[in-house]
This record gives sequence, structure tokens and C-alpha cells, in this order.
Amino acid sequence: MTKEKEQQQKDEQFMQKALIEAKAAFDAGEIPIGAVIVCKDRIIARAHNLTETLHDVTAHAEMQAITAAADALGGKYLPECTLYVTIEPCTMCAGAIGWAQLRRIVYGATDEKRGFHKYAPEALHPKATITAGILEQECRELMRQFFLSKR
Amino acid sequence: MTKEKEQQQKDEQFMQKALIEAKAAFDAGEIPIGAVIVCKDRIIARAHNLTETLHDVTAHAEMQAITAAADALGGKYLPECTLYVTIEPCTMCAGAIGWAQLRRIVYGATDEKRGFHKYAPEALHPKATITAGILEQECRELMRQFFLSKR
Repeated sequence: MTKEKEQQQKDEQFMQKALIEAKAAFDAGEIPIGAVIVCKDRIIARAHNLTETLHDVTAHAEMQAITAAADALGGKYLPECTLYVTIEPCTMCAGAIGWAQLRRIVYGATDEKRGFHKYAPEALHPKATITAGILEQECRELMRQFFLSKR
Repeated sequence: MTKEKEQQQKDEQFMQKALIEAKAAFDAGEIPIGAVIVCKDRIIARAHNLTETLHDVTAHAEMQAITAAADALGGKYLPECTLYVTIEPCTMCAGAIGWAQLRRIVYGATDEKRGFHKYAPEALHPKATITAGILEQECRELMRQFFLSKR
């Protein structure tokens, strides 16, 4: 198996874990976005969107995952970690990802309306790499189902 | 007294409260930035930067103030509130300010390096108004003293 193929398999496995988080958000009536943070092939943080439950606009999956990962590692920077998140991060989360110095971000589906690419394209660490489109259909479908159910 | 002059006096009074928070951060060895959120001329949240203490890059003064204000009001949106913060918000905080729908932001000194004007100029609510330069000297001087002491 090529190195690229192996990485893609790993990415899909970790995105599955982020999707489990997103589904937990869905079941709780939250916009279904989930995230995990991986350090040396080990998941050190899992989180899902809790903005409704906590009445807190800052309680996005990525924000909570960053806080939890820093807590797990005992330091506030995460340069050796990868963030997996089902939907493209927003401006706020991209800013936090930049501060945390995360060097790799993997997301499922793009967010045309609120994604950071549009509003804060330089928010991430200059050396950060981005992989988009991992399990895109599943990630997007969960969002579609959620907003359909809210109509 | 004109309406403008009255507003300026109020802004200076509330910024003084944000400066008290910034000084508390300074004394705790934190980058000295403080914030208060005001609703109908009443302070409903006060916070200062706690990134070192909490080992958490997301623990900026503004983020904590938004969480606390939403908690105080019992809802996650803050359209009738004003945020006072000693230094121009960063991309992350501007994103959070946008999500919270804060309609007025007052800050002391600009942040040339990390301020949202440069990296995420459209992050705020489209109807949000910004007042800059309130007690600018005091806000900036506190930062200068802090970084001088760290050399």
C-alpha cells in the first residue's frame, strides 16, 4: 500500500470518529458537527457542538477539542497534532486553530457560508496543511438532514 | 453636555473597568487584556486573559466575557450589548463577536499584528459599529510594560 493510500485510510478512520461526535450532536438537537484531535496516531480529544445546550456561541466542536487536547497534553500549543472536523471551521475556530499552532487540519465538507476560507483565509499557522473532502458525503448529509428536520 | 460627549464619558468609564481587568491579568503574569460587556448601561460580564493560567489559547478576555454575558442573560445572542476591550480583538474573538451578534464594539488600542481588521475584516455582524481609541494610551502602555518586563 502506498504511503498516500495509508494516510487516506487513517484520515477516514479518524473522520469516522469525528462523525460519531457529529451524530451525538444531532441526537442532542445541536447542529451536527464533530471533531477529534489526534497526536501520534492517538485520539487525545473528542468533542461536538454544544452551542444550544450551553447557550454559548463559543462552544463549537473545534473550540472544545482544542481546550481538551491542551489539557490532555499539559501545554497550550498543539504543533504535532491533527484536527479532524466534519465541516470546514468558521472564522472563530480558524483563529483558535492558528493560536494553538495546529499544523494539520482535515475536514469533511466545506461550509460555503461561514467557512474560514472565505472570511479569514490567513488565520491558520503559515505552515499548516489542509486536507479537505474526507468522508465529505456523510459529513454533508448529516447537516442536510438536520436542517431538513428543522424546517 | 452633547449626546456625543456623554457617550464618550460613558465609554471611558466602562473602558476603565476593562482596564482594571487588564491589570489583574498583568499581575497574574498574563498578557494584559481585559474586557467587560455592558447591557443597558449595566456591566453583565467582566473577564481578563487567562491563556497561561488555563493553558488554553481560547481563554481570551473577550471569549470568556461572551460566555459569561450569555450566561447572565440566559440566551446565547447579545444584540443589545456593547463589548469593551482594551486591545483590538483577534480573528478568533472577532468570529465569536460575530456569532454572538454583538452590535457595538469599543476598544482601546489597535493590534497591528493580530487584530481582526487585518485578518478577518468581515467577521463581525454586518450592523455592528466599532469605536476605537478609547483610553488608547493606558491600554497600549500596559501592554508595553508587560512585554518590556518579559525581555
